[in-house]
Amino acid sequence: MARSKSTLCAWLGCPGLLGCFLLGFLAGWFTKPNEKNPDFSDVYQNVRKKLVAEMRAENIKQFLRSFTKLPHLAGTEQNLLLAKQIQGQWKEFGLDSAELAHYDVLLSYPNEKEPNYISVIDDEGNEIFNTSFFEPPPQGYENVTDILPPYNAFSGQGVPEADLVYVNYGRTEDFFKLEREMGINCTGKIVIARYGKIFRGNKVKNAILAGAQGIILYSDPADYCAPGVGAYPDGWNLPGGGAQRGNVLNLNGAGDPLTPGYPAKEYTFRYKVNEGVGIPKIPVHPIGYHDAEVLLRAMGGRAAPDSSWKGSLNVPYNIGPGFAGNSSTRKVRMHVHTNNKIARIYNVIGILRGAVEPDRYIILGGHRDSWVFGGIDPTTGAAVLQEVVRSFGKMKMEGWRPKRTIIFASWDAEEFGLLGSTEWAEILSPDEGYENKSLYESWLEKDPAIENNSYPRINKLGSGSDFEAYFQRLGIASGRVRYTKNRKTDKFSNYPVYHTVYETFELVERFYDPTFKKQLTIAQLRGKLVYELADSQVIPFDCRDYGEALKGYSNRIYILAKKHEEQLKTYKVSFDPLFSAVVNFSKAAAEFHRRLEQVDKKDPVAVRIMNDQLMLIERAFIDPLGLPGRQFYRHVIFAPSSHNKYAGESFPGIYDAMFDIESKTDQHRAWEEVKRQISIAAFTVQAAAGTLEEVA
Amino acid sequence: MARSKSTLCAWLGCPGLLGCFLLGFLAGWFTKPNEKNPDFSDVYQNVRKKLVAEMRAENIKQFLRSFTKLPHLAGTEQNLLLAKQIQGQWKEFGLDSAELAHYDVLLSYPNEKEPNYISVIDDEGNEIFNTSFFEPPPQGYENVTDILPPYNAFSGQGVPEADLVYVNYGRTEDFFKLEREMGINCTGKIVIARYGKIFRGNKVKNAILAGAQGIILYSDPADYCAPGVGAYPDGWNLPGGGAQRGNVLNLNGAGDPLTPGYPAKEYTFRYKVNEGVGIPKIPVHPIGYHDAEVLLRAMGGRAAPDSSWKGSLNVPYNIGPGFAGNSSTRKVRMHVHTNNKIARIYNVIGILRGAVEPDRYIILGGHRDSWVFGGIDPTTGAAVLQEVVRSFGKMKMEGWRPKRTIIFASWDAEEFGLLGSTEWAEILSPDEGYENKSLYESWLEKDPAIENNSYPRINKLGSGSDFEAYFQRLGIASGRVRYTKNRKTDKFSNYPVYHTVYETFELVERFYDPTFKKQLTIAQLRGKLVYELADSQVIPFDCRDYGEALKGYSNRIYILAKKHEEQLKTYKVSFDPLFSAVVNFSKAAAEFHRRLEQVDKKDPVAVRIMNDQLMLIERAFIDPLGLPGRQFYRHVIFAPSSHNKYAGESFPGIYDAMFDIESKTDQHRAWEEVKRQISIAAFTVQAAAGTLEEVA
Repeated sequence: MARSKSTLCAWLGCPGLLGCFLLGFLAGWFTKPNEKNPDFSDVYQNVRKKLVAEMRAENIKQFLRSFTKLPHLAGTEQNLLLAKQIQGQWKEFGLDSAELAHYDVLLSYPNEKEPNYISVIDDEGNEIFNTSFFEPPPQGYENVTDILPPYNAFSGQGVPEADLVYVNYGRTEDFFKLEREMGINCTGKIVIARYGKIFRGNKVKNAILAGAQGIILYSDPADYCAPGVGAYPDGWNLPGGGAQRGNVLNLNGAGDPLTPGYPAKEYTFRYKVNEGVGIPKIPVHPIGYHDAEVLLRAMGGRAAPDSSWKGSLNVPYNIGPGFAGNSSTRKVRMHVHTNNKIARIYNVIGILRGAVEPDRYIILGGHRDSWVFGGIDPTTGAAVLQEVVRSFGKMKMEGWRPKRTIIFASWDAEEFGLLGSTEWAEILSPDEGYENKSLYESWLEKDPAIENNSYPRINKLGSGSDFEAYFQRLGIASGRVRYTKNRKTDKFSNYPVYHTVYETFELVERFYDPTFKKQLTIAQLRGKLVYELADSQVIPFDCRDYGEALKGYSNRIYILAKKHEEQLKTYKVSFDPLFSAVVNFSKAAAEFHRRLEQVDKKDPVAVRIMNDQLMLIERAFIDPLGLPGRQFYRHVIFAPSSHNKYAGESFPGIYDAMFDIESKTDQHRAWEEVKRQISIAAFTVQAAAGTLEEVA
Repeated sequence: MARSKSTLCAWLGCPGLLGCFLLGFLAGWFTKPNEKNPDFSDVYQNVRKKLVAEMRAENIKQFLRSFTKLPHLAGTEQNLLLAKQIQGQWKEFGLDSAELAHYDVLLSYPNEKEPNYISVIDDEGNEIFNTSFFEPPPQGYENVTDILPPYNAFSGQGVPEADLVYVNYGRTEDFFKLEREMGINCTGKIVIARYGKIFRGNKVKNAILAGAQGIILYSDPADYCAPGVGAYPDGWNLPGGGAQRGNVLNLNGAGDPLTPGYPAKEYTFRYKVNEGVGIPKIPVHPIGYHDAEVLLRAMGGRAAPDSSWKGSLNVPYNIGPGFAGNSSTRKVRMHVHTNNKIARIYNVIGILRGAVEPDRYIILGGHRDSWVFGGIDPTTGAAVLQEVVRSFGKMKMEGWRPKRTIIFASWDAEEFGLLGSTEWAEILSPDEGYENKSLYESWLEKDPAIENNSYPRINKLGSGSDFEAYFQRLGIASGRVRYTKNRKTDKFSNYPVYHTVYETFELVERFYDPTFKKQLTIAQLRGKLVYELADSQVIPFDCRDYGEALKGYSNRIYILAKKHEEQLKTYKVSFDPLFSAVVNFSKAAAEFHRRLEQVDKKDPVAVRIMNDQLMLIERAFIDPLGLPGRQFYRHVIFAPSSHNKYAGESFPGIYDAMFDIESKTDQHRAWEEVKRQISIAAFTVQAAAGTLEEVA
């Protein structure tokens, strides 16, 4: 995207099933549309209705069927062919343009001649057990070629041999427990972590920090098999031979590891692979639970601080005072020969030009590349996107155009470190048992409000998909809500075959959405959201809700700080400037919306001026200097957690400065950094409030 | 300034006499107004005429008289009183608002109890000569208190004693000559450099890099006494007892040294003074040429590579093969006790609100703080600004408002490292001998075009005044032309008493502008420029001229590179992507202006969209990552030269990567960096071209 273009909002397609999107402060609006948007014309209402009525579950089903017949790994011929197919369809649907935008980025593939695997070795060094080279293919796909075996993209190469240490989920707190409570040193060891809870790249980073020379990732049935559900193809649980693929980079928002900060075009300077951003130096390899059980048994016994570390494999482990040290009886040897390689990727960019403000953009996108068939991730998103594009195209061919420009995007190479997104509304719920309730009501019931809020929980944006660069780096309003499971009742994973060969069309058709109504609902929701953003006279954002969120976040970080009450006094740490800035923000927001109600709706420049303020409020939270050590994460209010890329952290600069602060040797220096971060947060919130003031 | 506000253009008042402003690409427009702006209405022409006719030389004279009676050093009570006086007048003139904006920044003052001076010492360490403690005050100002003696703000403290080495102007090339040709090592020495040619902070930085433990700065008559002119008060030449004050920071755009990147407000975190940005660790002290002659004589003879190092003092020096080493007979001792201190400064910010697009801003400003009386720097600028504000206020009180908002600014503490700006037009020339020519013609004649351009030379923006943060950090279109002397005929300095106590009202009244017509012309020019920017329907920028400039800069840097033809081949360095991007930019600019002619002028949103593109083209050249090692210089096309802050360098990233490249040990690495910089420049120019394309 060219610089300086003004993007109003990015709604990026979610890779997961039924991903839907919502910007926090939209919630209020959707529940009281008449109060805040009294000027809906009949035409406006009609277009919205027609757009939603145009969409068909059957079409989504056909798109999903068509897009999941073959693997579509980024950098492959098959994925380019799919890009061209989508481009052609978008043109047929009536978009003004649909172009391929290519980049030459660093990808990573297993070595075709030397397979990756893990061995258990005996005292003479003989390999007495090897993990499997591939997953047993699902029925109907036995003859498909080009299925890559499970691997962790961007793994280091190597054949390390060492004792094995079990590190639970490999989280920061897990390693703290090992090192500080259990006295177990991982230096020179190979560690084995179970998948889940946090982004796998953080597990690898933690292993490296602990001094490990290799890390094995496995899927524990405790996390990847729901009770009472069969393994695929009998149900949607993970079979014992399946293993989760996925990249293990720690990019911190850099994008292509060799061209951080710049697009990977033909003329772009590339760092050498060993200078690339976030590429681990140690081997990493994923295995299924059948293989994992053998490896863990060979250890002879895992140490564990409590039963939460156990998982569901029948392997001995020791809890409590006697847990000092793992007692490996066998060493393991990793064989990892994965190669990094520069390859060409293709985004499909479709444009529906705005009639009045063509220079204001709403982006709706999702990724297209998949690890294998991508039955759920990403193709439910891609199929939904296709139906949305088709419906907008239909409206345009009938003579309509949105006020603002809509950009549709089919992103490539999300799985290799570039990333995707999501939406929301009051369409009827497609869920069984909620037939007469609205989507909003069913959401609220299944994921209840925290404390005294009247709306369902909205997670903070972290990372893990394609909205990242737009939100965390550029400050473009974005949102993501994962509509996945009933959090009140379902404690197990609802998506065990994630990133395995078993993610097929049939998986969706048989188990997840046989009528395709859930996906239809999402298509309608996304379509409607894009429509509102593109065609409403006043952008449907409410800054007052942002003010409320800031209030909550500032209280939360203060409560965290209060755990160190003594130090707050000693080092004269005050949160008052931050609280004061938050109050000023809320006042400015209230004042802004009062003025907004009075603006002369017949004066297009006056309306555009206030829309610009609404659009740019997110941009005002960007600090051009970035967060400490993470120059591409520049949003002062939100960042991907330093301990789990998937999760969002609020006031991340302050949070990170205080994290584990008691263990730092120079306390004065550590608390000075906390003060510096509070000052940056206070300034940024105050400056953002300034942008909401009456212009001039 | 709050973030995300959209500033169209910053015209910042020049501190020097007759500073005037011009954005390169405005030149074309001013010479052919009818061709490019056919839609001038009568109203528009009338307002412009009335505004210019309102201004009076006598008013400027009175403002200058009033503002220069007392010293107005930043951080002092006197300068706050002047701020309040200006604020009050701006309100009386009719601005919508005039506010003081304060900041608590690091300033620097001499120690009141321990004077700064330099001694010559004998073999027993006795001080046998001391430089003077103050300048003899000018007639009529003998009883003024609060005149600070000459000093270099932010000097390190110390009393070093060492041999003295003469380093000419202290430029990079001067130190190269000393070290590489003459074999003179400055480590542990005190060096003495003459003022002139480059910013004094760069001299200090070079001395530190060379290992010196102190640096003395003096004004040589060769640079500060024009032939045939008397010393003040008999003429405008520098008396022998005068010494130039000035800061010696190397901020690289950081602003306040203790709060880089953030405003120095009450709540802002401050680094400790020893962690501050750009503060030299060694003592620095300025002296006049009477004292300098004694010091240089005490050296017993200066070494010099050729006669260009001689200057005008009657002190022995040795040229040629026999120059190896200076033969100091006496050591010198520096006494510097200057203190850094956090103090409050005040900008005056006046606003004239725009009627149609109040969220688009034109800034006209200049600084108010002075070293002593500030007779020329900055008060000619401040007096001119005052008359411009008065005239705009008059128009507003008669019922007129500009389309866009005008912000007037009286900046504080420019002299301490924050920085100022300039303008241009076709008003009648006020110069003697040019009575019937336009200002444009007299400019062209006195500062002729380079090569085959038909317009006068326009210097690239560097730094040294308050436009810096706006242009080099934020990418807001800014300009500065110094209208100083006839470059064809006048080879000497025309401003010798710069930053001395002799900069008085009488200096201006007697020698520089007795009728105050030159200052009136500048007031009219600045007023008119601000008016055009604030009130014309289409912003008077022509991107095609930017394209021409880019072409010139890319050719120039390629010619520099061609000096290393062998290496370009060996390391496969190609400038083709940059040339190609420049061609694309020019095409996009031409296409843009074709569309601009056809835009429906009755559609205010359509016009605003194209104005936004014009306004934002400068912003498109900003690289958020900044230049290597200079994060606050983010403009890819221009930066202050790394060797002289006053001068602008084009394609500074590439230039710096190639500078003295032959002396670098790792040639491969050095040329890889050149390639990386070419890639960044190519991408940035290409991205800027993208912003000029038809939206959507």
